[in-house]
Amino acid sequence: MKDPVYKLIELTGTSTTSIEDAVDNAIGRAHKTVKNLCWFQVIETRGNIAKGKVHHWQVSLKVGFEVKG
Amino acid sequence: MKDPVYKLIELTGTSTTSIEDAVDNAIGRAHKTVKNLCWFQVIETRGNIAKGKVHHWQVSLKVGFEVKG
Amino acid sequence: MKDPVYKLIELTGTSTTSIEDAVDNAIGRAHKTVKNLCWFQVIETRGNIAKGKVHHWQVSLKVGFEVKG
Amino acid sequence: MKDPVYKLIELTGTSTTSIEDAVDNAIGRAHKTVKNLCWFQVIETRGNIAKGKVHHWQVSLKVGFEVKG
Amino acid sequence: MKDPVYKLIELTGTSTTSIEDAVDNAIGRAHKTVKNLCWFQVIETRGNIAKGKVHHWQVSLKVGFEVKG
Amino acid sequence: MKDPVYKLIELTGTSTTSIEDAVDNAIGRAHKTVKNLCWFQVIETRGNIAKGKVHHWQVSLKVGFEVKG
Amino acid sequence: MKDPVYKLIELTGTSTTSIEDAVDNAIGRAHKTVKNLCWFQVIETRGNIAKGKVHHWQVSLKVGFEVKG
Amino acid sequence: MKDPVYKLIELTGTSTTSIEDAVDNAIGRAHKTVKNLCWFQVIETRGNIAKGKVHHWQVSLKVGFEVKG
Amino acid sequence: MKDPVYKLIELTGTSTTSIEDAVDNAIGRAHKTVKNLCWFQVIETRGNIAKGKVHHWQVSLKVGFEVKG
Amino acid sequence: MKDPVYKLIELTGTSTTSIEDAVDNAIGRAHKTVKNLCWFQVIETRGNIAKGKVHHWQVSLKVGFEVKG
Amino acid sequence: MKDPVYKLIELTGTSTTSIEDAVDNAIGRAHKTVKNLCWFQVIETRGNIAKGKVHHWQVSLKVGFEVKG
Amino acid sequence: MKDPVYKLIELTGTSTTSIEDAVDNAIGRAHKTVKNLCWFQVIETRGNIAKGKVHHWQVSLKVGFEVKG
Repeated sequence: MKDPVYKLIELTGTSTTSIEDAVDNAIGRAHKTVKNLCWFQVIETRGNIAKGKVHHWQVSLKVGFEVKG
Repeated sequence: MKDPVYKLIELTGTSTTSIEDAVDNAIGRAHKTVKNLCWFQVIETRGNIAKGKVHHWQVSLKVGFEVKG
Repeated sequence: MKDPVYKLIELTGTSTTSIEDAVDNAIGRAHKTVKNLCWFQVIETRGNIAKGKVHHWQVSLKVGFEVKG
Repeated sequence: MKDPVYKLIELTGTSTTSIEDAVDNAIGRAHKTVKNLCWFQVIETRGNIAKGKVHHWQVSLKVGFEVKG
Repeated sequence: MKDPVYKLIELTGTSTTSIEDAVDNAIGRAHKTVKNLCWFQVIETRGNIAKGKVHHWQVSLKVGFEVKG
Repeated sequence: MKDPVYKLIELTGTSTTSIEDAVDNAIGRAHKTVKNLCWFQVIETRGNIAKGKVHHWQVSLKVGFEVKG
Repeated sequence: MKDPVYKLIELTGTSTTSIEDAVDNAIGRAHKTVKNLCWFQVIETRGNIAKGKVHHWQVSLKVGFEVKG
Repeated sequence: MKDPVYKLIELTGTSTTSIEDAVDNAIGRAHKTVKNLCWFQVIETRGNIAKGKVHHWQVSLKVGFEVKG
Repeated sequence: MKDPVYKLIELTGTSTTSIEDAVDNAIGRAHKTVKNLCWFQVIETRGNIAKGKVHHWQVSLKVGFEVKG
Repeated sequence: MKDPVYKLIELTGTSTTSIEDAVDNAIGRAHKTVKNLCWFQVIETRGNIAKGKVHHWQVSLKVGFEVKG
Repeated sequence: MKDPVYKLIELTGTSTTSIEDAVDNAIGRAHKTVKNLCWFQVIETRGNIAKGKVHHWQVSLKVGFEVKG
Repeated sequence: MKDPVYKLIELTGTSTTSIEDAVDNAIGRAHKTVKNLCWFQVIETRGNIAKGKVHHWQVSLKVGFEVKG
């Protein structure tokens, strides 16, 4: 079977800084256990608030990688 | 990396009794292998029918937990 | 034609008690005229309110059954 | 202007018991300040988890009431 | 009634700088009148354009806070 | 803070005549208490039926206005 | 069983004149065979074009009525 | 009333072969009782699995036909 | 290649009068450059407000036409 | 500006044979005027019916290509 | 706990031939590690294009299987 | 015809830096051929990954501009 098959996992990355940083954190964490991550899609952007400011950006994303073998 | 990262898995719990019980069953089963489940969101509520009555409630949910390390 | 074909009808069941009871009422009523109901999917959960309490739960669902012949 | 106009507000009710109870709590609370609540629609069902069990059901709903005058 | 009830309001924050800044502006403005803002969800990201550049980022979000009493 | 912030409220206008008239009624009513309404988006068009004719058009819309101060 | 159960059917009404007229046509036609129509929701508004003008408005709607007995 | 009115019914066709065949089966079955079927829209494509292979393709579709008279 | 291929373009028509007029304006304008417009679907209905009244209806629609050659 | 920018166009391909063939027809036709088509996403699958059989599969898709220069 | 619980995983299967083949490839690959796959739902159909032809069909699907124990 | 008509085109901007930069790139490129761009809406945020980091942010947006004449 030569046609590649991919698996998608869903993660929520968080950051006190930015949406991009929250995505980076999620991908960086996933990369520790899965080396061949290929692409992602942002599913939802949320966050919690403390003292009238965004405390944590919470960005849910699907991340795809090729399933080998 | 101090900002927490969460993983979401999707489950379908079933119950002959209620929607709540179907959710409880899914979470209880997931808890056997993942101890730090944090939150869930119901995705879809379905069921099968036998003799004009609901036989099994089938509730699909996403469950989130923190990815350590 | 051996492959089964199903028809889906949409119903709104109501109940003063619970979401499950509203679904049961819809399926029970449909069962009076269609005997081989197979499955359902909840489409929407609404209700009306009287004196600050839920008066009727109104649950819309699709119900599927095999079309014979 | 005789044609009624309604306002919809969005609430999240919570309960340790059931989805219905979470909805009741939200409507009961809104009823304290708005007496003529008419109808509601469930928008989302979520919850948090503690020790492998649902801790709080969190049900978001829109509630409509007539704007007088 | 011990179970908390939350209200959600919808705001559109704007910024000439970034999506994050538009969200911050909306939350900062809401915080002037509601002190216990808890969380937000981004609903839509739009903007207007002037001279081939983004002039204002316009980010719609729901903001939730606990209804006391 | 120079960047404007807007609030969106959701209303359901009704009319025995037309969709446009139902929208006008909702906006006209909101204008009694909020003078600087800016824009609206139609969310849903429904209605009730009497004797085989549309009795009331019920149009839900979000209305946005700038939050001053 | 005292709690009412409703059935929803989906229709597409057409009109060369207006959206409202297309809805009226669909409801008027359904009323010929079902007398107790209660409510409708517009699902989709489409149309065909002839010579650079709208030829037929095509409005799809769900219509609900109580199932007796 | 010269403007045509259409009814839409929802079916799930199945096939062990292909999506197209599942649609054909549903339409062929509906044609036995309704002769003037006009158009369809695919709503959902699902299936069940046996021994690591698709056993039945299950394709849900809406089918529209003109209501005469 | 005998099977027709269509292109869809998205337009926003505006009108101070009605939703239908906004759609007509968009289609009328497109007809100036594309003669064989076939069908349209309404995507979104919005508008701006001036002095508590609808100023411009803004209706977004997709318009389809056959690509020849 | 080295970061590529893509344009997406929406097409409806048709075929009397299959969904795949309808997609191929749309892409083949677009390729006549745009040489560097990169990817597509299926938006909707519909069709018309003649004599109880699918007459034309109508598949709407977005097609993306890089905008040079 | 006798009520079954299912897990859903999301995969993207690819094929140079057809949508069905892309689904088969994804399920066949998943079957290598999970033997009791039960059902699937197609989430999205995309593809890449080379020389004006579909190069790879890319079909994303959720696959469900019972979680034992 | 005094009521303005707008056209919407869909673009995917990319950037190695941020979501905002990807949007800016798309709008800047479109501005080369269309001078009166008015507004945009973000449709989807995706990206590809290389070595466990976001390589390109890919942001799809609709851009609207007035059609003159």
